[in-house]
Amino acid sequence: MNQINDIFLPEPTLRRLPWYLAYVETLQKNHIEFVSSTQISRALSVDASQIAKDLSFLNIRGKTRIGYEVAALAESLADFLGFTQSHKAYMIGCGSLGKALIRDSGLSKYGLEIVAGFDVDAEVVSRRDLGVPIYHIDNIYEIMAETPASIGILAVPSEMAQEAADIAIGAGVKAIWNFTPYRVKVAEGIVMANTSIYAHLALIFNRLNSLDK
Amino acid sequence: MNQINDIFLPEPTLRRLPWYLAYVETLQKNHIEFVSSTQISRALSVDASQIAKDLSFLNIRGKTRIGYEVAALAESLADFLGFTQSHKAYMIGCGSLGKALIRDSGLSKYGLEIVAGFDVDAEVVSRRDLGVPIYHIDNIYEIMAETPASIGILAVPSEMAQEAADIAIGAGVKAIWNFTPYRVKVAEGIVMANTSIYAHLALIFNRLNSLDK
Repeated sequence: MNQINDIFLPEPTLRRLPWYLAYVETLQKNHIEFVSSTQISRALSVDASQIAKDLSFLNIRGKTRIGYEVAALAESLADFLGFTQSHKAYMIGCGSLGKALIRDSGLSKYGLEIVAGFDVDAEVVSRRDLGVPIYHIDNIYEIMAETPASIGILAVPSEMAQEAADIAIGAGVKAIWNFTPYRVKVAEGIVMANTSIYAHLALIFNRLNSLDK
Repeated sequence: MNQINDIFLPEPTLRRLPWYLAYVETLQKNHIEFVSSTQISRALSVDASQIAKDLSFLNIRGKTRIGYEVAALAESLADFLGFTQSHKAYMIGCGSLGKALIRDSGLSKYGLEIVAGFDVDAEVVSRRDLGVPIYHIDNIYEIMAETPASIGILAVPSEMAQEAADIAIGAGVKAIWNFTPYRVKVAEGIVMANTSIYAHLALIFNRLNSLDK
């Protein structure tokens, strides 16, 4: 039914919607047919009125006393979040993490299709076993003309992060998904998302150390 | 010098400290010897007084006019964040993402040592090519006795996330690093960190769609 989502959603809503999706998919696997916002609220510790507000962005209505139809809600959420459409991406930096992300088929199930990788290392560039072609970063302009992509996934060493992002944006990428700990700066109008793996590690290590006291 | 970090740090500080580290490591690679908070402030768009406050947790002092010695600051930050110590972890769920994370050598450079993987799929459990042994989840108690770990990295399907976390915690894991979109609940005293890959994807997709308008 592809409900095109052209509303600029608040970040907290975009954070919570995938929780709801994961929860209703779990219900679906357990053959549960209906769910109320009260049930979702209890399971996820999110206020029921907040859930109703978040779900009001979707083109779906719950029924009084019965709640939402689980299958319809799951489909609607996946569509609304863009997970059922294909979004093409380049992997910028195909070292350890870049290769790992290319190999993770989970991303494609959520609508992210990595169509090419870029690196500067001749050995990496010649690889043919990753499932996608790897090119030298100097060729990104030609590749953009042949196999365009709107998202650049940044998995280069920190000290190259800014330059690599600038090159990808120069070639036409509209969004940077930054996996490096470097705080990359982009011009207004370019979408930026940071997945701060190392900050999460730091948090875990710090809290574990504090537990020991 | 291993400066043991036993202070419970605020989350925003823990988010910013890895930015400073990535930045000073970049300076170090470029053979720059000193850096002031004003320079860090400009590069990262963080208030200079905030930087001074964050760095005051560390056992390091900048010099008037000269600033911080880059090499010492990098070492101190890495130590303080726990990146120079080894923290043992189990990969719970060795599907596509779990395998990818096991193969990502970058994590070990930041102090995370994955010592074993667990799964329920007989085919995965028999694999010998991932660099770490993979066991059936039923064996986690024995493995904990032989090769203990304090962190459980959760990369199972959503509908198994809560159960898998409960099993890992039951076996003795003290922290859960959750890569699933499921909102796992843990008892007080258990460290919890969520890396919401799918929420970041949803954010990118939504912002890209809004750009097109």
